[in-house]
Amino acid sequence: MRIPRILEAYRESIEAGLARALEGDAPLRPTLRYHVGLENEHGAAAQATGKLLRPSLVLFAAEQLGGRPEAALPGAVGLELIHSFSLIHDDIQDRDRVRRGRPAVWTIWGVEQAINAGDLMHTLAVSTAFDASPAAAACLVRATQAMIEGQCLDLEYEHRDVTAEDYLTMIDRKTGALFRCAFELGGIAAGVDDRALALLKKLGQALGRAFQIQDDVLGIWGDDDLLGKATGSDIRRRKKTLPVVLLLERAEGDDAAALATFYRRREPSMADLSGSDAAWVAERLNALGVKAACETMVRQHLAEAGDRLRGLPFSDDARASMDELIGFLARRNQ
Amino acid sequence: MRIPRILEAYRESIEAGLARALEGDAPLRPTLRYHVGLENEHGAAAQATGKLLRPSLVLFAAEQLGGRPEAALPGAVGLELIHSFSLIHDDIQDRDRVRRGRPAVWTIWGVEQAINAGDLMHTLAVSTAFDASPAAAACLVRATQAMIEGQCLDLEYEHRDVTAEDYLTMIDRKTGALFRCAFELGGIAAGVDDRALALLKKLGQALGRAFQIQDDVLGIWGDDDLLGKATGSDIRRRKKTLPVVLLLERAEGDDAAALATFYRRREPSMADLSGSDAAWVAERLNALGVKAACETMVRQHLAEAGDRLRGLPFSDDARASMDELIGFLARRNQ
Repeated sequence: MRIPRILEAYRESIEAGLARALEGDAPLRPTLRYHVGLENEHGAAAQATGKLLRPSLVLFAAEQLGGRPEAALPGAVGLELIHSFSLIHDDIQDRDRVRRGRPAVWTIWGVEQAINAGDLMHTLAVSTAFDASPAAAACLVRATQAMIEGQCLDLEYEHRDVTAEDYLTMIDRKTGALFRCAFELGGIAAGVDDRALALLKKLGQALGRAFQIQDDVLGIWGDDDLLGKATGSDIRRRKKTLPVVLLLERAEGDDAAALATFYRRREPSMADLSGSDAAWVAERLNALGVKAACETMVRQHLAEAGDRLRGLPFSDDARASMDELIGFLARRNQ
Repeated sequence: MRIPRILEAYRESIEAGLARALEGDAPLRPTLRYHVGLENEHGAAAQATGKLLRPSLVLFAAEQLGGRPEAALPGAVGLELIHSFSLIHDDIQDRDRVRRGRPAVWTIWGVEQAINAGDLMHTLAVSTAFDASPAAAACLVRATQAMIEGQCLDLEYEHRDVTAEDYLTMIDRKTGALFRCAFELGGIAAGVDDRALALLKKLGQALGRAFQIQDDVLGIWGDDDLLGKATGSDIRRRKKTLPVVLLLERAEGDDAAALATFYRRREPSMADLSGSDAAWVAERLNALGVKAACETMVRQHLAEAGDRLRGLPFSDDARASMDELIGFLARRNQ
């Protein structure tokens, strides 16, 4: 799939900004450079950074709203570092051994130093954002708080019943907070008024919801998208993502009872679902039309993002770029 | 032992500030209130906060330098929250089950939520400091970075040989950073000039060294201080605190070889020293005069703190209060 312009235009300057924020041989810097994909685990240069979606949105919004991308860069880099810090700690919490196709930090440096690495990335993120402005740093700190609260809810949800509304509350924090922050940081760098800032946050919120729901769909249907079969590891790991929340709401009778048992996880150490149980859940997901329901929600939130976009003083060209990005996010397979 | 005035004068307002910063029923707030000692694990009010040494120093310095303690309070509370966040993560890393006589957060809420609790406390600390001023928040973020780097070095040291100089480098970050920050935050709230800020940081650094070395002594000789016998758990846990670093430097011949083996820990999971090995290390510590050497260093750093103090525009009364605090820290047994 062709990479959208928004993700190409700023990549080089964001990577340079990340390298500056994490340069030197102070403690754990090689670990942090490894994690963001600037180096391999032996300290040699690597090209393994992710999509850099969030910082690209910061710079795009700043530029379209009349700011200078350079002025917005430290905030953009700070935002990517916050996202990165959360992934380091997420991988420890979820016992995920692989991150973007490479060994997770904790599998190489141990859980203890991985906790420190996340903590250090967190604080470097805020100090980098200060280089943009105190307002950018304060904005990032607010978003970080919401993101962590979302992460708390996500873990809590593993141990209790969850409605679709609960789920949206959680992703608005866990994922939405950094998307809102991306557009807000762009607006702050461009010096827009409060009305525009409020619109930008709504745009970010809608985009964040679409992104996270799409992520949940990929976690179950992933690469086998063309076959429409549920095969992803999220089922075996009993993750209560949106497809499962909808499934639990839709199932009736014996199905409902069996599913409730599978998902009433009380012990963090409780084993994964067996292969046959997972296959049965996958079959139920397909039979009850859950995938289509999720995809409808993704489309609705992307449409809302498009509406919000039209309320902002973006050029036709900028709107086309955002539409291209939205199309990309809707069709992405990773 | 009588509580010094500095630790009594501000306790009430610091506790009120902590309660405000952690109020409400948003995710994990009860866990955070438990950790700082405002509540028990069931949410009932508790009186289990620690000495609150760092925030007391902020308010004391602010007031003595002509600032209003209320203006310094958010920075002081932010500093205590940073210290608290580090303890939550430390306890996970060290597998410490007890903190200030109560079960550590991870033993009650699990490692996953304890990681989140530390992360949330970290970000709430910075947002609280913003309520003082952006300069206070920036100062706190710098100190947090240094503290985490010190924590990284501390873990690294478990797996390599360490000199007394290495040790001081580590504690200047791990412990010293927050002590420097305490006085700096006081100075910022009072609006002092750069020369005074530099002196305040040196005062904090000297006090931080004395505090940490005293802590190391307590970790080995602890409650049995009167007997002068080394009995603490730090020996069994092979912690490379100053007494052990000095012991490794002083030991010769067969002793040196045996000690090197005990302390050349390569695996984080390596078992604690056996009781008889620990007793032998304790005996060597006493035979080679390590305790006296550490106590001399504590006295030297406290004397340096006293010297720095005389360069600052503190009243005679304030100097007497600081001397009282220094005496208390030198004689404390916890």
